[in-house]
Amino acid sequence: MTDINKAIENLDWSKEPKGLYEPIAYTLASGGKRLRPTLAMTAAEIFGGKEEDVLPAALALEVFHNFTLLHDDVMDRALVRRGRETVHVKWNDNTAILSGDQMLIEAYKLLEGVPADKLGKVLCWFNEMATGICEGQQYDVDFEHASQVSLGDYLMMIEKKTAVLLANALRTGGYIAGADEAEQEALYEYGRHIGLAFQIQDDLLDVYGDPKTFGKAIGGDICCNKKTYLLLTALETAPAEDKAELLEWLLVSDRDQEKIAAVTALYTRLGVREACEVEMEQHTAEALLQLDSLPQNKATDALRVLAEKLVTRKS
Amino acid sequence: MTDINKAIENLDWSKEPKGLYEPIAYTLASGGKRLRPTLAMTAAEIFGGKEEDVLPAALALEVFHNFTLLHDDVMDRALVRRGRETVHVKWNDNTAILSGDQMLIEAYKLLEGVPADKLGKVLCWFNEMATGICEGQQYDVDFEHASQVSLGDYLMMIEKKTAVLLANALRTGGYIAGADEAEQEALYEYGRHIGLAFQIQDDLLDVYGDPKTFGKAIGGDICCNKKTYLLLTALETAPAEDKAELLEWLLVSDRDQEKIAAVTALYTRLGVREACEVEMEQHTAEALLQLDSLPQNKATDALRVLAEKLVTRKS
Repeated sequence: MTDINKAIENLDWSKEPKGLYEPIAYTLASGGKRLRPTLAMTAAEIFGGKEEDVLPAALALEVFHNFTLLHDDVMDRALVRRGRETVHVKWNDNTAILSGDQMLIEAYKLLEGVPADKLGKVLCWFNEMATGICEGQQYDVDFEHASQVSLGDYLMMIEKKTAVLLANALRTGGYIAGADEAEQEALYEYGRHIGLAFQIQDDLLDVYGDPKTFGKAIGGDICCNKKTYLLLTALETAPAEDKAELLEWLLVSDRDQEKIAAVTALYTRLGVREACEVEMEQHTAEALLQLDSLPQNKATDALRVLAEKLVTRKS
Repeated sequence: MTDINKAIENLDWSKEPKGLYEPIAYTLASGGKRLRPTLAMTAAEIFGGKEEDVLPAALALEVFHNFTLLHDDVMDRALVRRGRETVHVKWNDNTAILSGDQMLIEAYKLLEGVPADKLGKVLCWFNEMATGICEGQQYDVDFEHASQVSLGDYLMMIEKKTAVLLANALRTGGYIAGADEAEQEALYEYGRHIGLAFQIQDDLLDVYGDPKTFGKAIGGDICCNKKTYLLLTALETAPAEDKAELLEWLLVSDRDQEKIAAVTALYTRLGVREACEVEMEQHTAEALLQLDSLPQNKATDALRVLAEKLVTRKS
């Protein structure tokens, strides 16, 4: 299979003005899982698609994903991403805004390489996906300040913010390689479900992850009262007394370690961890089911392994 | 001809989440000249193109232009745009960033309406134009801090930042309506030249405009030492003594009215105003020349009138 990292390295950012392109090169060189292009390429492989036909869209998805991280980091005032200073710290806010804008344009430029007869649909899906992600980001911000957020709201938000990008990567890769409509739909649903499982696993790792492998401090979400799948599940299912205790801890902002320990203990007692795991397993099972309707080969198997791996990952 | 304002009003922004879409509606409702879509529609009219074929691209160009203003206002910390609070003031920086991103995506969404057989080229040109504008913006920032900027550098910058959008609007409109390659090129060159004249006129109005009709304070560029066509011409052409006086005024930052009066007097004495007018007239003449190679009708005449009007405008 195509070496995605190699293909990303081969993108040329040695252009002028340097102030615009160097932050893009920096962002794309910082690694990451390259999950989205890998999904697109694997989906295409199922249908024996030509790599050169799918690669432009796969790269567009990765560049787009990194654009969202760049702008999110400005909005969240994040200092570190993948172990390195974020762009707005290393340069400044304006650079992060403008180079981010250019990165979004670069994603659309890469779409020019999509076979002409497929471009219309791929562009339309790409726009729909990009819109979903901006909407998801806005809901995420809105939920921070909302007094009432339901588990259903939360799932809608993470579907837009995370799942549609994975889903669209798969559908796009399959479509370019010749998947029919039912197969495109199956790929999309597979991606949507692993995306949801992926995000819930993220929430879970923040509380129950191993500090040695997780890569960031455990309990960050608890400290800042982030409305995660865990917190919302606890608030929706806890008996009155436990709920009162939880709500009290949400008011505490000066005793981080104590708060993390207490809220984690509450989650454990309430079976929140198991509730997460059940939800994740359901999504993984749904995802795997979708694969049964596709041609069976090495690439389909790779998606099976990936679905399992995403929910057992440690970081 | 299509009522561009009506078509823009008809775009539906009453979507959820409101925090994402309301700033877009606000930005697009603030008026402006609607110059870019008008140019696209007029170019199409020359070739008898169907309005419904050209309108999506015309609207995409206007939405894109307004996206650049939205993000530029964040970067420039501008408080007012077209007589109203800018988005980052009325809402906040994060809203301006995210709604701006969505606006850029909305521009690409509008391109979905381009006839399928024309989409590839229109998308490719749109990307090239968008890239030029981001590069131009970066050069503009770079030039602010650069000790040496030549008139040539400046013309390159305004070509990217202003002229390519007008040029591409015309070329795109003509192409969709059936212009051949030579005609596309003539439209592009017409647009590029009026764009350059337009920007130089902007610089000129900032110094010599009538405060009653200009809409903002006269001399703003002089106060902040903005490297305009006027300042760069003065620096390149002034005799040693005048140049020394000008450089001294550039160091003054506490006597705005005195500085404006003195620098304006210097410009006038050095014939900078006339130099601008000559440059503008040359670009206008070049632009008009391009029109001679196109089919001659009411729409071509409208472009002639527009070219003259742009360089005699008062605001």
